[in-house]
Amino acid sequence: MLVLSHQAFLHPPKPSSLPRIKPRASMSRSRSPSPVLDFPYLPPPHRDLMLSLLSTVHSRLASHLLPSSVPSDVLSFHNDASTSFGALDIRSGAHDSPVDFILESWLHCKLPTGALNITTLFGFLNASTEAPHLLMEFIQGSPTSLVLFMDLLPRKDLVLHPEYLAEFYQDTQLEKLRQELNNLPYVQPYCSSSLYIRSVLSPTAVAVNINCGADGESSMEEVMGAQLSSVAKEVLQIWLDKCACSSHQMEESKRNVLIQRDNLIKTKTVEIDLSANLPRMFGPNVAEKIVGTIQKTFRI
Amino acid sequence: MLVLSHQAFLHPPKPSSLPRIKPRASMSRSRSPSPVLDFPYLPPPHRDLMLSLLSTVHSRLASHLLPSSVPSDVLSFHNDASTSFGALDIRSGAHDSPVDFILESWLHCKLPTGALNITTLFGFLNASTEAPHLLMEFIQGSPTSLVLFMDLLPRKDLVLHPEYLAEFYQDTQLEKLRQELNNLPYVQPYCSSSLYIRSVLSPTAVAVNINCGADGESSMEEVMGAQLSSVAKEVLQIWLDKCACSSHQMEESKRNVLIQRDNLIKTKTVEIDLSANLPRMFGPNVAEKIVGTIQKTFRI
Repeated sequence: MLVLSHQAFLHPPKPSSLPRIKPRASMSRSRSPSPVLDFPYLPPPHRDLMLSLLSTVHSRLASHLLPSSVPSDVLSFHNDASTSFGALDIRSGAHDSPVDFILESWLHCKLPTGALNITTLFGFLNASTEAPHLLMEFIQGSPTSLVLFMDLLPRKDLVLHPEYLAEFYQDTQLEKLRQELNNLPYVQPYCSSSLYIRSVLSPTAVAVNINCGADGESSMEEVMGAQLSSVAKEVLQIWLDKCACSSHQMEESKRNVLIQRDNLIKTKTVEIDLSANLPRMFGPNVAEKIVGTIQKTFRI
Repeated sequence: MLVLSHQAFLHPPKPSSLPRIKPRASMSRSRSPSPVLDFPYLPPPHRDLMLSLLSTVHSRLASHLLPSSVPSDVLSFHNDASTSFGALDIRSGAHDSPVDFILESWLHCKLPTGALNITTLFGFLNASTEAPHLLMEFIQGSPTSLVLFMDLLPRKDLVLHPEYLAEFYQDTQLEKLRQELNNLPYVQPYCSSSLYIRSVLSPTAVAVNINCGADGESSMEEVMGAQLSSVAKEVLQIWLDKCACSSHQMEESKRNVLIQRDNLIKTKTVEIDLSANLPRMFGPNVAEKIVGTIQKTFRI
């Protein structure tokens, strides 16, 4: 949802040519547990991975997070033609937490070529710390192919701050994890089409396309269930230990640049990705509500 | 020479096991033309490309550049065992030019596995402008394989300055050129092992490994003579038009951060690349002279 950015995935389907699908009962109005945790359309290994990641975040950050205040028509939504479905939940950080918010979402879109499933976990920290944000996004274009972004997003210019690069990227061995995934069969480096999104990513960002082609679903299940799952869990663990739960304090005087930079990341992400793509998937009215809720959380 | 950084290329050869090669006469003491322009060991298509690039730089920037003041034992050098040779020339910019210096070099190293040839063109601008620097480095590990870095190095944090990204990277269509090379057969993305070097590069940096494998030298000659040559010349042209010869002026008040950032790029580059690798190729005494000359030019 956040780094998808005008890729080749989104060709708006002609509603008349597609079967209408009713949203599952669990997606409609139950607010407990959050509809985001349903993942009703995801292939099982993708679903298992997301459930595991979100469960880790929720249990580890329980005391940091306020209850969700996302309105029900954003917690779960679909387009008029009932060909695209989605769920979005946002939990803001408590007053004394370094967590600004945790955003979780899934989108499911029936396309003429098959189903597109996008899951996102985004952990944004506030200006009490300069530690990196977390971004995880899995864009599954078919049961055998997946584009994946996983990164600790730097909050400072790494060229000007080599000590920050050393602390959060070198010493944490994130490069080893990146290489572990990049060296697997079926895995190719993937470049976002947006130069801004590329600039936002760190030098150890996982940005890959996993395409199992003719080897099919069982190979994708293996990769997701084994290496991808293991690397994603390790990256999340590093972020939780080193960033979200660290006592690393930010000097008051340096907060302005950090806030300005964070705001730019938020504004540009909404502009490049959400405002460009959500209306095509969900129509202007639903998209406006979703973007509005995110902008309110982002304070932009 | 500048982004080679502890890659797998450099295994110091055992001098006793290698034939001793005498430096060619033209490399010894003639200072006109510069020994850098000899390229005595380069495969012809690599040599043709370098000669063409340097000739463009020299004719276009003639009025910007002061005569070389590089001492003769740095203009051309070799190790005690005469298994590694190199040439380095640096031309500082004239008083009223935005050019800080132009660095040109080639290194040739006989290794047990074959010959390693590294050619570098580095165009550094001063703080009268904020326009990007130029980096071109070709690391040819064999007649059929080449690692290549080509970039306009950003001088500002692109996340904080999207207008800079738009001006120098989006509007110049550098991405089109990057993709043109990356989509060729034999071409794979290449990652520097240094996270700092990766951070220094722009999102449109060409960083690739061209490996023609069994298709051999003729394929490499074709790629170098056609697409690679054409893209390299276009990138250079963009830099000359848009950066080195532009009248883009920098506000006096903003120069301090720019200078601090430039100095970090220079310091870290010398530390990561030159100080780590040159002693292994040329021995400590020769390496010290070369690094000393570069540090003097870099004012670090």
